[in-house]
Amino acid sequence: MTLDEIVSRLREFAAARDWERYHTPKNLVMALSGEVGELTALFQWLTPEESARALEDPDLAANVHDELADVVLYLLRLADVLGVDLLAAAEAKLDRNEHRFPVAGS
Amino acid sequence: MTLDEIVSRLREFAAARDWERYHTPKNLVMALSGEVGELTALFQWLTPEESARALEDPDLAANVHDELADVVLYLLRLADVLGVDLLAAAEAKLDRNEHRFPVAGS
Amino acid sequence: MTLDEIVSRLREFAAARDWERYHTPKNLVMALSGEVGELTALFQWLTPEESARALEDPDLAANVHDELADVVLYLLRLADVLGVDLLAAAEAKLDRNEHRFPVAGS
Amino acid sequence: MTLDEIVSRLREFAAARDWERYHTPKNLVMALSGEVGELTALFQWLTPEESARALEDPDLAANVHDELADVVLYLLRLADVLGVDLLAAAEAKLDRNEHRFPVAGS
Repeated sequence: MTLDEIVSRLREFAAARDWERYHTPKNLVMALSGEVGELTALFQWLTPEESARALEDPDLAANVHDELADVVLYLLRLADVLGVDLLAAAEAKLDRNEHRFPVAGS
Repeated sequence: MTLDEIVSRLREFAAARDWERYHTPKNLVMALSGEVGELTALFQWLTPEESARALEDPDLAANVHDELADVVLYLLRLADVLGVDLLAAAEAKLDRNEHRFPVAGS
Repeated sequence: MTLDEIVSRLREFAAARDWERYHTPKNLVMALSGEVGELTALFQWLTPEESARALEDPDLAANVHDELADVVLYLLRLADVLGVDLLAAAEAKLDRNEHRFPVAGS
Repeated sequence: MTLDEIVSRLREFAAARDWERYHTPKNLVMALSGEVGELTALFQWLTPEESARALEDPDLAANVHDELADVVLYLLRLADVLGVDLLAAAEAKLDRNEHRFPVAGS
């Protein structure tokens, strides 16, 4: 599925369950934050080196996939409800970051 | 830009600045979490109704775009470093959610 | 128990389980952040008005107590490991806030 | 100042500025989460070893004190608005944790 197809499916998912009234930006920011908290908990006791090998452990890998999915789903839903084009915002920020942090010697 | 193009550009951005050594999954989860914290702060004193009109205020709209961009950039970088296909993970989770929360009467 | 007694008990708890090596400030910040994420999830779909009555629901009240406890325990442990006097830091910040946000007409 | 004195001062601070209407549990959880995000950002690129020496850098130490203060102030205000006795909740949780994670050989 493309990003746009996932966004459409999230819209239909919310509409079919009458959950649109819960999906205010304020609530969705909290939901996103809660899911990032769950993702954080998976990495909290790992060393940086262990974190780089997290996907080698099948149970941890499944949890990481699951939490990353929750994070991206709430992020896409939030951007959709706000009417923000997430990829355009990301590209504009990358442009700014490249000016803000010039490469040494370039 | 497509999602894949943004991921590639983030790779080049980190490599050109010798920042790859900082981009462990553990560190990137923290960076993602910090940016979600900044996004949260933009909405914390708004009512749910005000949050739905956040983009009508030009200053707030610019900040929301900026923080959403930071969140998606760190999320894409994290998934890339881990080797996770974010859209596939999202699709698999949507499938599970549709089974977990059946539509009433369907 | 006083705050200091809880801090002491957290020290003994970690030492007895040989968990001190996990309790770096970096890891404890992540643990704190994960617990705040769980607390956030309890409030994400509530209206502000419903959130003000959260303790009237016995199940929700138990969860709120539990997550608030996790948050304060990790916060106390983090401050202890860093060597920060949390109450002194709080008092200094209150002083600054009272200058930063003067009361109208005073 | 004692914990109780800080809580009283926070009450007066909010009342004097007519900010009580903003201090719903939902909003305060978001404010707490935003401050934990700022604290997280201070530690995100540090190794665990560097994080243990964070207070040796005067600028970083000042920022850590400042963010820890913000976190504890919002946590105390949140517990006060909810009517939760934070230290009693912490003690009850410590009791549960000591049963949940018995010391090996004891």
